[in-house]
Amino acid sequence: MISDKMKKLSAGKSAIRAMFEDGKKLAAEFGAENVYDFSLGNPSVPSPDAVNKAAIEILENEDNIFVHGYMSNAGYESVRQAVADHLNETFGTNFGLKNILMTVGAAGGLNVILKTLLNPGDEVLTFAPYFAEYGNYVLNYDGVLIAVSPDTETFQPNLAEFEEKLTAKTKAVIINTPNNPTGVVYSEQTICAIADILNRKQEEFGTSIYLISDEPYRELAYDGVEVPYLTKYYRNTIVGYSWSKSLSLPGERIGYLVMPDELDGSEEIIDAAAIANRVSGFVNAPSLMQLVAARCLKEKTDIEAYNKNREALYGALKELGFSCIKPQGAFYLFIKSPVSDEKEFVAYAKSLRLLIVPGSSFACPGYVRVAYCVSYDTIQRSLPSWKALAEHYGL
Amino acid sequence: MISDKMKKLSAGKSAIRAMFEDGKKLAAEFGAENVYDFSLGNPSVPSPDAVNKAAIEILENEDNIFVHGYMSNAGYESVRQAVADHLNETFGTNFGLKNILMTVGAAGGLNVILKTLLNPGDEVLTFAPYFAEYGNYVLNYDGVLIAVSPDTETFQPNLAEFEEKLTAKTKAVIINTPNNPTGVVYSEQTICAIADILNRKQEEFGTSIYLISDEPYRELAYDGVEVPYLTKYYRNTIVGYSWSKSLSLPGERIGYLVMPDELDGSEEIIDAAAIANRVSGFVNAPSLMQLVAARCLKEKTDIEAYNKNREALYGALKELGFSCIKPQGAFYLFIKSPVSDEKEFVAYAKSLRLLIVPGSSFACPGYVRVAYCVSYDTIQRSLPSWKALAEHYGL
Repeated sequence: MISDKMKKLSAGKSAIRAMFEDGKKLAAEFGAENVYDFSLGNPSVPSPDAVNKAAIEILENEDNIFVHGYMSNAGYESVRQAVADHLNETFGTNFGLKNILMTVGAAGGLNVILKTLLNPGDEVLTFAPYFAEYGNYVLNYDGVLIAVSPDTETFQPNLAEFEEKLTAKTKAVIINTPNNPTGVVYSEQTICAIADILNRKQEEFGTSIYLISDEPYRELAYDGVEVPYLTKYYRNTIVGYSWSKSLSLPGERIGYLVMPDELDGSEEIIDAAAIANRVSGFVNAPSLMQLVAARCLKEKTDIEAYNKNREALYGALKELGFSCIKPQGAFYLFIKSPVSDEKEFVAYAKSLRLLIVPGSSFACPGYVRVAYCVSYDTIQRSLPSWKALAEHYGL
Repeated sequence: MISDKMKKLSAGKSAIRAMFEDGKKLAAEFGAENVYDFSLGNPSVPSPDAVNKAAIEILENEDNIFVHGYMSNAGYESVRQAVADHLNETFGTNFGLKNILMTVGAAGGLNVILKTLLNPGDEVLTFAPYFAEYGNYVLNYDGVLIAVSPDTETFQPNLAEFEEKLTAKTKAVIINTPNNPTGVVYSEQTICAIADILNRKQEEFGTSIYLISDEPYRELAYDGVEVPYLTKYYRNTIVGYSWSKSLSLPGERIGYLVMPDELDGSEEIIDAAAIANRVSGFVNAPSLMQLVAARCLKEKTDIEAYNKNREALYGALKELGFSCIKPQGAFYLFIKSPVSDEKEFVAYAKSLRLLIVPGSSFACPGYVRVAYCVSYDTIQRSLPSWKALAEHYGL
C-alpha cells in the first residue's frame, strides 16, 4: 500500500531510532537506571534557565496573535535580524535579515536547501562516516549521495578522493564539523584545502558547487579548539544551524539557514528556499521558539558537563583496551569494533544493556557510535558493562 | 541555480502569501488601521487562556529534558493516547495511541501521508475550489493532482464528475470540509455518497483508494451544523488535523494524523508514516506544543466572534449587491467577481486597501476569497471601501 521509496526506507529503518525504541523497552523491563543508553544525540544537559524564562516572559507579555500566529514563511523579521546581527558580531560576517531563513531544525533546513537546489540525478558529496539521514534527505529530491571514503586513522576528510569524486553533476557538498559520529573538528587548513579544491572544480566544470555546512554541534568544541565559520572561506557556502544541541531544544525543531549574498544566484536561492519551506509542509519554523531563540542568542549550554563525560568515558574505554580517537567536538565517541561485524558487537553490548549504534548506519562499518550526552552517573554505572564487553572480546 | 521544480514554483508564487506581504507594505505606508487585510487564514481570535496557562505550567513544573527533548518520531505516547481518547469520546471511534501520529501542522501531516502513499504518476483527486497547496504537496512526490470541477451554484462536490475521474491510478482523494475557500460543509448524505462511490470504484479496480480528510476547520461550524467524522463512513479514511484554527496556533505548527486500524495495509502505513515524518525533516512535531495541545483538547475557540464577522460581512456584501453563498463553516466568504477576470477585481480592491485573494489560486477563477478572520472593527471600517468597490462595478 505504501510507496516504493517508503518500502525501502521501512525495510532499512533507522538503527539509531530502533535502538532508542529498544532502550525504552529495556528501561521498562530492567528499570531506566539499569539501561545505559548511548544511542541517541539527545542532550542530557537541560536548556539554560534563560530559555524557559524567555518563553514564559513572551507568553505573559507579548500579544497572543503575534506569538502564535503566522508570519512570513522565512520567519519573523525581528528574529532573522537578531540572528544576522549575532552572527556578524561573533564571526565578523556581514549578513542582513534577508540572508536568514528560520527552519524546523537543521533537518528541516537541509531539506529546504536540497529541495531548492537539486534536480533528479544531481550529485551530492559527503564524507564518510556521515549522519545517515543525509542519504534520505538527498533521496527526497531524487539526488544521488556520493560518499568519500573515511580515513580511519584520523577521520579527517580524504581530500584526494574528494577531488576525484567531484564531477560536473556535483551540485552540493555536505560537511559536518564538529562531526557526527566521530567528534572530529576540521581545522582551518582543511577548510582552506576544501575551498581550494571546490574553486578549482567550479572553474573546471563551469558550474556552481554549494558547500552546505550542517552545524548543530558548532558550540560543542573542547580544549579551546576553533571551529572556522565557513562562509568566510568559500563563496558558495550555505550554513544550516539548529539550537537542538546548543540550547538543548531538539524536540522543539528550531534552527535556520544562512544564505549569503555572495552565493551564485543568491536572490533566486533565497526566494526559492522560502517557498520550499512553505510547500514542503513546514510553512514556517515554530513561532514561539523563534522568539525564544532570538532572546537566547548569547546563552551557552553547559559544555563542561559534556567535557567531563568525554574525559571520563574516553579515558575508561582506552584503559579497557578499546581503540578510539579522542574527539574534539560534538558528544560522540567513534570506537573501533573488536570484530569486523560491528553489528555483532552492538548486539552483545545490548545484552549488557549498553545501547550503541553500528557504524554501518554512518557508512562506516567496523565502528560503533557512543553518544555520551548522558548523565555522568550513567557513565559511571555503565563501566562494569563496558568492562564485561572488553573482557568478552579479550581486550 | 535552483531546481526546475522550484523554478516553476518561484514563477507561480502563492497569491495568498504575496497578498500577505503586500499587506505588510501597505500597512507601513497607510497605517495598519487603514488596510483591510482579508487575505490570510490567520485567526483573529487569540488562543483560549488555557493554552498559555498550560504552556507556562509545563515550563515551570515539568522536567526540562522531557519537555524540549526528542521523543519517538510519532510523538509522545501520552499525547497520542490523550488525542485518541478525546476522539473516541467525541466521535465514538475506537482509536489507540498507535493510530495517532503527531505532525508539524496539517501541512506537515498531509505531506507525510502523501509521501507515505504516492508513487510517481499516482493520481490524487480533489474538489475545486481547493487550497492551492494541495497541488504543491502532491507534486512533492511526483503525483498528479486531478481536480473535480466546481458546482458554482452550491459549491457542494460534483459527484457525477468525481465518479468519472476516479481511475485505477487514483491512490487518494483529498477532501476538506468545512471548506477553504467556500465555507461549505458537506452533509452526511454527501459523505455517504462519496463513500459509496469510492467503495464501488475500489471493487471495480481492485485497488485501495485512501480518503484524506484535511480538517483544520472542523470546529468552525455555525448554526449548529454537524460535521461528520469521516472514518465512520469509509474504511480507508485518514484524517489530517491541526490546532491552527481551533486553538489559534497557526505559527506553532502542531497537528496530527489519524490512521485507523481499518485501513488496507494499516500497519505498514502507520509504520512508514512515522519514518516519513523523520526523513522529510520534520523529525517530530514541536515538543512543548504537543504537551500543550494534549492539555487543551477540550478548549474551544471563540466561534461566536467569527460568527459575528460572518453575519456582518455576509449581510453587508449581499446588500451591496455582491453574489455569494452563505458559508456554514471555516472563516471565508467566496464571492463571485463582477468581472470575469477576477484578478482585475482583486487589483481594484487593493487600490481601495481591501486585500482579497483571486479564486484562480483555488482553481476557481471568476471568484475571490475573503478571509473574515479579522477584528470586527476591521470589518466595520472596511465597509466604505466595499461600498466603493460595488459602486465601481455598478452593483
